[in-house]
Amino acid sequence: MLSDVATRLAEIVGEQQVLTGDQISADYAGDEALTVPGQQPRFLARPGTAEEVAALLVAAAEHGVPVTARGSGTGLSGAARPRPDGLLVSFERMNAVLEVDTENHVAVVQPGVTLSELDARTAEAGLNYTVYPGEMSASVGGNVGANAGGMRAVKYGVTRHNVLGLQAALPTGELIRTGGKLTKISTGYDLTQLVIGSEGTLALATEVIVKLYPRPAHGVTVLAPFEDLNQVLAVVPRIISSGLAPHILEYIDNLTMAAMTYAADLRLGVPDEVRDASGAYLVVGLENRTAALLDGDVELLGTLLGDLGAAEVYVLEGNAARTLIEAREKAFWTAKSIGADDVIDVVVPRSEMAEFLASTRELALKAESGVLGCGHAGDGNVHLAVFQKDPDKRRALLHEIFAEGMAVGGAISGEHGIGNAKRDHFVELEDPAKLELLRRIKQAFDPAGILNPGVLLD
Amino acid sequence: MLSDVATRLAEIVGEQQVLTGDQISADYAGDEALTVPGQQPRFLARPGTAEEVAALLVAAAEHGVPVTARGSGTGLSGAARPRPDGLLVSFERMNAVLEVDTENHVAVVQPGVTLSELDARTAEAGLNYTVYPGEMSASVGGNVGANAGGMRAVKYGVTRHNVLGLQAALPTGELIRTGGKLTKISTGYDLTQLVIGSEGTLALATEVIVKLYPRPAHGVTVLAPFEDLNQVLAVVPRIISSGLAPHILEYIDNLTMAAMTYAADLRLGVPDEVRDASGAYLVVGLENRTAALLDGDVELLGTLLGDLGAAEVYVLEGNAARTLIEAREKAFWTAKSIGADDVIDVVVPRSEMAEFLASTRELALKAESGVLGCGHAGDGNVHLAVFQKDPDKRRALLHEIFAEGMAVGGAISGEHGIGNAKRDHFVELEDPAKLELLRRIKQAFDPAGILNPGVLLD
Repeated sequence: MLSDVATRLAEIVGEQQVLTGDQISADYAGDEALTVPGQQPRFLARPGTAEEVAALLVAAAEHGVPVTARGSGTGLSGAARPRPDGLLVSFERMNAVLEVDTENHVAVVQPGVTLSELDARTAEAGLNYTVYPGEMSASVGGNVGANAGGMRAVKYGVTRHNVLGLQAALPTGELIRTGGKLTKISTGYDLTQLVIGSEGTLALATEVIVKLYPRPAHGVTVLAPFEDLNQVLAVVPRIISSGLAPHILEYIDNLTMAAMTYAADLRLGVPDEVRDASGAYLVVGLENRTAALLDGDVELLGTLLGDLGAAEVYVLEGNAARTLIEAREKAFWTAKSIGADDVIDVVVPRSEMAEFLASTRELALKAESGVLGCGHAGDGNVHLAVFQKDPDKRRALLHEIFAEGMAVGGAISGEHGIGNAKRDHFVELEDPAKLELLRRIKQAFDPAGILNPGVLLD
Repeated sequence: MLSDVATRLAEIVGEQQVLTGDQISADYAGDEALTVPGQQPRFLARPGTAEEVAALLVAAAEHGVPVTARGSGTGLSGAARPRPDGLLVSFERMNAVLEVDTENHVAVVQPGVTLSELDARTAEAGLNYTVYPGEMSASVGGNVGANAGGMRAVKYGVTRHNVLGLQAALPTGELIRTGGKLTKISTGYDLTQLVIGSEGTLALATEVIVKLYPRPAHGVTVLAPFEDLNQVLAVVPRIISSGLAPHILEYIDNLTMAAMTYAADLRLGVPDEVRDASGAYLVVGLENRTAALLDGDVELLGTLLGDLGAAEVYVLEGNAARTLIEAREKAFWTAKSIGADDVIDVVVPRSEMAEFLASTRELALKAESGVLGCGHAGDGNVHLAVFQKDPDKRRALLHEIFAEGMAVGGAISGEHGIGNAKRDHFVELEDPAKLELLRRIKQAFDPAGILNPGVLLD
């Protein structure tokens, strides 16, 4: 039986590209989710073409083998954790930038391409794929699955807003094309948007058309310490209303800043007395097409921040700016290194952030746990490191935090996704009528239920 | 039987809000689609609340009555044309702006609110809902149904990119909430995006959360005549790469310009000799937060346009600018007034516009028909007025134009939708695997098939 399936898979992708059992490296057992233990799949296949992906799905359906897709394995929800009886489809060989199109301002890529490769290729053309989820080794296909976000979402949106079209393999074996090199299209249900964020449960992207922006020639990072987090958060709508259109707008609490600067050996030039009086920081990224225009923007921002209570305004350029942003992007690793037991990314309306963060601190205190964090102040996406070793207590605390986020109009995840890690919470907390509808949509795509069963829905 | 149903509807929305037969004004028989003849519905109901909308759907399902939703009836696809045996749900009473939220930069509105009302209310707060499909009496709910676009899509995207959440009534009777006052969310399939553009076939929006931007204080419209259309279209990617981020980027061919200026009694200050030597025009809208910054942008644009072959560069301000943009927005009415038999809005990759337009002229010539137009040069959305009185010949020509658009990577409609008017073309030209998937998604939402049957799919 096992060898029957393996033989069939080998017929599709070639013998070299199918591994089984112990041949499969432990790296394939999961992603970076802290609470989802790794799981070796029964089969690993590494297709080289879209047609091979589609044929793999047909074979899997025939043999009743569940299928999990894998990009770079950098996800934080456990959506790339395979099933013990399952087939892991790794997109590592489908990693080409097929086209950087300077007339339509798009790139066409295979799903296994990394953000870092795409960044290098678009830079050559003076263009920019603006989704930076903080991990440049992530794959575009993985980002499509999770609807990945990142810091620049405040200006440019998330993956959803920057993917214009897909080629995708349906679990029923057809290859379809959705969208195109088009920013507008009004011809039926938007299948592109439906596949984005579906965590490998509806269809597997085999080609992705992404939107590119001109790469701004000049950029700067501004750091402003404030007395407390509420002050930081109150400043955010004022900056957005100013029309400055920052591409980064982050808050960092002082404990997280301490851990980040320590881990990155980062010298920001903040004097001890300012640092000691500061409860939280605002980080603002600005960019413009000329140095003079950028100077004007920085001046306006400085005045605004001063008026709104910033203790100081530090304009970071070159290395210090890059290091701060990189340290912020690596906040997950920092949290992991200081012993966080989980990292979550609840999203709430911007106006609810201060109150929501106060609630989480109270909930954590009551549960004898710790939470600290940083997050995307511009879009209400709160990244929390949770410290609680006991899995039951942690589970109960997370449930309360998620419920609180939803109660103020938010959602369990802004950009990490549900995956395996948060599925039970999602199913318990989401409106049953919506869950039922999601299940019927899943059924419409995947009548045999072979794509990533257990992820997102039970 | 008829009175049974009417009685049931009256129990839900009140007797005053149900009309039948001849009581129903002819205004309700359709929208502005030129080729979809009006059709009186059997019942008209005017609900006042989301709960009433949901109850109407339950009643309709019980009695097997097809349901069509109507906003302002300004659509161009015939999606609001009711069925002779059907119930028309008019959202005219659900027309309130519930909230303009200056902290989260969103507005919460009922579906029947007009763009004009929303524009006035957001202006008071210095904010802007940036979807301007060219008809300010259109309703937000109707725009959601069609995924309406408009000129500013080149900078701000279309309805899809500016709706963050919905309350919607499912045809199975439940009210659900999707999204929220959130620009990012990664918790399952995106139901907001699925309902947007579904032309009333999946669910009826009963509340809409839209994204608002700061309203730029300063704006200007630049008009540049060129020798021919190919020159105009070649300029477009250069302007986008410049980083100027225009919010309007339109082309107008010289015949359309003649009709527009005549219809609007518009004086643009273009001397006769320039006008006579110009085959097409580029219209660029720029905006910025200060007059000085805007001046700098205009200077850069002027240089760029001069270098790229513009015969002249006219900077229109105040009344002339407003009148030109309004005339362009009214291009549909101009086409109608000069006897166009249909107006279509194929979208193609920007780089394919010149060739696609040449093909359409050839196809029209062969079919002894006329086409002329204008369109969104920034996003490849080609608006064509088609002149051919014979319905069979016109149908055959449209089929060829649509097929040609799809062959170069485009789609039948960029922003008008499929509706009744283009359904047969859509079903004939679209990939059968995708159509099958659309039908299964429809089935997942609407097992009884009561929502707008015959629209989009057969």
